[in-house]
Amino acid sequence: MCIIIARIDTIKSAKIQIFNGVRSVYSFTIELKSGGKTPLYKQLYEHIAEEIRQNKLEENERMPSKKSLASHLGISANTVETAYEILVQEGYLEAVPRSGFYVRHIGAPPHTDDAPNYDEEAEQNSAEPQFKSDFRTAAVDVGSFPYATWIKLSKEVMYGSPELLNAGRFKGDIELRRGIAKYLREFRGVNCSPVRVIVGAGIEFLLTLICELLGKNCSFAIEDPGYEKIDLILRNGRRKVSYVPLDKKGMSVSELEKSGADIAYITPSHQFPTGIVMPIDRRAELLRWADEKPERYIIEDDISGEFNYTKRPMTAVQGISGSDKVIYLNTFSRVLAPSIRIAYMVLPEKLLKRFEERFSMYASTVPRFEQRTLSRFIAENYLSRHLNRVKNIYRKRRDLLIAVLKSTKYPLEISGERAGVHIMLKSPAADMIIKKAAESGIKLYRLDDYFFTPVQTPSNTLVAGYAGVSAEDIENLRRALT
Amino acid sequence: MCIIIARIDTIKSAKIQIFNGVRSVYSFTIELKSGGKTPLYKQLYEHIAEEIRQNKLEENERMPSKKSLASHLGISANTVETAYEILVQEGYLEAVPRSGFYVRHIGAPPHTDDAPNYDEEAEQNSAEPQFKSDFRTAAVDVGSFPYATWIKLSKEVMYGSPELLNAGRFKGDIELRRGIAKYLREFRGVNCSPVRVIVGAGIEFLLTLICELLGKNCSFAIEDPGYEKIDLILRNGRRKVSYVPLDKKGMSVSELEKSGADIAYITPSHQFPTGIVMPIDRRAELLRWADEKPERYIIEDDISGEFNYTKRPMTAVQGISGSDKVIYLNTFSRVLAPSIRIAYMVLPEKLLKRFEERFSMYASTVPRFEQRTLSRFIAENYLSRHLNRVKNIYRKRRDLLIAVLKSTKYPLEISGERAGVHIMLKSPAADMIIKKAAESGIKLYRLDDYFFTPVQTPSNTLVAGYAGVSAEDIENLRRALT
Repeated sequence: MCIIIARIDTIKSAKIQIFNGVRSVYSFTIELKSGGKTPLYKQLYEHIAEEIRQNKLEENERMPSKKSLASHLGISANTVETAYEILVQEGYLEAVPRSGFYVRHIGAPPHTDDAPNYDEEAEQNSAEPQFKSDFRTAAVDVGSFPYATWIKLSKEVMYGSPELLNAGRFKGDIELRRGIAKYLREFRGVNCSPVRVIVGAGIEFLLTLICELLGKNCSFAIEDPGYEKIDLILRNGRRKVSYVPLDKKGMSVSELEKSGADIAYITPSHQFPTGIVMPIDRRAELLRWADEKPERYIIEDDISGEFNYTKRPMTAVQGISGSDKVIYLNTFSRVLAPSIRIAYMVLPEKLLKRFEERFSMYASTVPRFEQRTLSRFIAENYLSRHLNRVKNIYRKRRDLLIAVLKSTKYPLEISGERAGVHIMLKSPAADMIIKKAAESGIKLYRLDDYFFTPVQTPSNTLVAGYAGVSAEDIENLRRALT
Repeated sequence: MCIIIARIDTIKSAKIQIFNGVRSVYSFTIELKSGGKTPLYKQLYEHIAEEIRQNKLEENERMPSKKSLASHLGISANTVETAYEILVQEGYLEAVPRSGFYVRHIGAPPHTDDAPNYDEEAEQNSAEPQFKSDFRTAAVDVGSFPYATWIKLSKEVMYGSPELLNAGRFKGDIELRRGIAKYLREFRGVNCSPVRVIVGAGIEFLLTLICELLGKNCSFAIEDPGYEKIDLILRNGRRKVSYVPLDKKGMSVSELEKSGADIAYITPSHQFPTGIVMPIDRRAELLRWADEKPERYIIEDDISGEFNYTKRPMTAVQGISGSDKVIYLNTFSRVLAPSIRIAYMVLPEKLLKRFEERFSMYASTVPRFEQRTLSRFIAENYLSRHLNRVKNIYRKRRDLLIAVLKSTKYPLEISGERAGVHIMLKSPAADMIIKKAAESGIKLYRLDDYFFTPVQTPSNTLVAGYAGVSAEDIENLRRALT
């Protein structure tokens, strides 16, 4: 049995005490605001629920009757009834017919709020660039994005294809995969049917899938120096990673053998970061290595494959020997813009079967509107025109950068200029160059920082990406170095 | 030394034989087509490269001189020079000054083409629906998508924010994460700062990240019956999965204890597929379970949390006890459309730190244009209006379905109708109902098919999703069952 003593402070505020026999077991103050966004019944519900969660109301305690609580709070009995109803529905109270509402045992752990050390501003600031111009390698000339065409196609696709709101296949829509297969044939010498093309929201995601496909016991060899991010993805997937040194042709196959790895991750079209274009005999040697054991595969990261300034880009490794042993990996982020999250891979047949078994229930990670926009962009020849245009822009920028560097007082040797969007410069004055540039707010990179195994002798080599810098940035570099 | 015998078939076709001493070691026919898409030098290059790859030209063989090959083929010496130059650059030939061009050893494995058993048509057909109407649970009423608003906002975002072409942060843009945090607070009672919100292209992707975050030794408990896809994702990630039976409040905590799992994956707002809304005491009990050991976490899959037809949706488990032990997981695919690939999670602080360490280098999987469109959709109150509208549509459809089912001659008991977008119907005539429906091209589902452990006694219960069917489909069901 319970007695309520309520002191009404304002018309809708009450201090309530519930007595159980002689002992005061509970008292709480409710302050209800009428006319606000939150209805009264909800305020009442939330208050009581919170008190029960915090164990301020003991198990089996009988709640005040609807009528008495309503009268004490100066609200309608209906409001209390609604609140009680929800409390019963959610399990806070038990309604015992012809007796009343009883508190049930909840015993939720205490509520913890966000720690104050995580604040948005710190996060925002950490993203601010610290240099005026940054010759990083992963950049893209966003200014050359085919804005008008892309928006026009997007609009047409959205207006014209509402059916794309439905779920598509995990591999991606067939129109886009057909377009990619055709594009790969024409531009990269990759031969594959569209069924072997799989589209996903970024290299990170696709490589994570590849890890799962290849199993937890497979071990990877990556190029040293190489991509830190690839190492990170593989290690996040708990895969064993060996760092295999390069010779002048790219990844050393004898060192690869020694590593005991099953999967060789290579960047043959423009090794990152050394810029080595892997010659055909090394490509063949790697393919023979892969052929020796059934569990061996090559992952061909062809992210720079489109940017080749010689008469003819080298055919992808996948195109040399067909489909059995090469997982071909590429993305449109580099060709179009970083925020276009469409990457793709071409799987060997054996892995494709495994892929279909394991992942066919998944939903695609790429919005279908974007898929359709891109497939029209390819089919209507915008992509090839765009590529030619961008390649010309990058070629000119590369030429300017090389000319500027050669015009400075520092002796230097350029390499890696045949392809990709960065060059290497070796100079006995490398330290001075990086220092002078930094003093003018210009960021250049050291080759030695891309090594996974500690560098014994400094290479005196810098890495300069030119896709994300302007002609003005390059002129500023000239001034900084003269 | 080599001698060439070339028989000119057409003006640009030649059969070439290379003699090394007395032995004819090599002969090949080149057919060059002028005036086509492929320049002559490229045709020549490709032909010779292919012959070398196939080991038809032996190592160290001397190639015909540029001049003699040109004259035999009836093409200019420049064309041959360009082809040879590329062959040298790519490593097929070695140029020895004052001597000539020599074939290098390549030894590529034989080329394999796509197996014919993978054809596009088979893939396409397998995607065709086999039923006229399908009461599946994962569907969405695509017709109610806020098309005009979405396209208007998309256009404005694309035209107005070209800076979004640049790479954003892996966690997602802060505007969207702020919007989601606000939305969660208002609609789901989740309390979190935007820094703990992470956006990704689908539940599959986020759950894969969670697996990597939690480490390879953590083991998962999922509800039985439950989501086949979740089981698949966890097993693809090579995580140990236990199937924990339900009682009438949802996942049994005593069975969870017995399983030895560290991570409990639950669907408390509308258990899939039974439709149980987990009462507050079970929620609290699970939170206490999680509190017992530091490595324990709850993954709260709140995919049906928005669709609640009672006076008030239950606060998410995350909102009861704050941030420490619950990974909150949800998606806009269900609220907007399946092809909107924006899912999100709210991480506990401890996991957030780990997340930043491991994944901060990754690129986001969600295009920034879409992120911005959605964040405006939330900020400008379109989302809350849309949600109300869709909830009304679903509520009416649910009521119609229940009325139709109750009007048939079959005795049945409905459950799971309080929330979500599907109901359960238990009937001694379950077999007959499913058979009659199938005869009219209508697909209903059996609860027993959602169990991971074999069902001993048939439950005679069917599962019917109503989000993806029309009033007409429901009328057809009525006809099928009368």
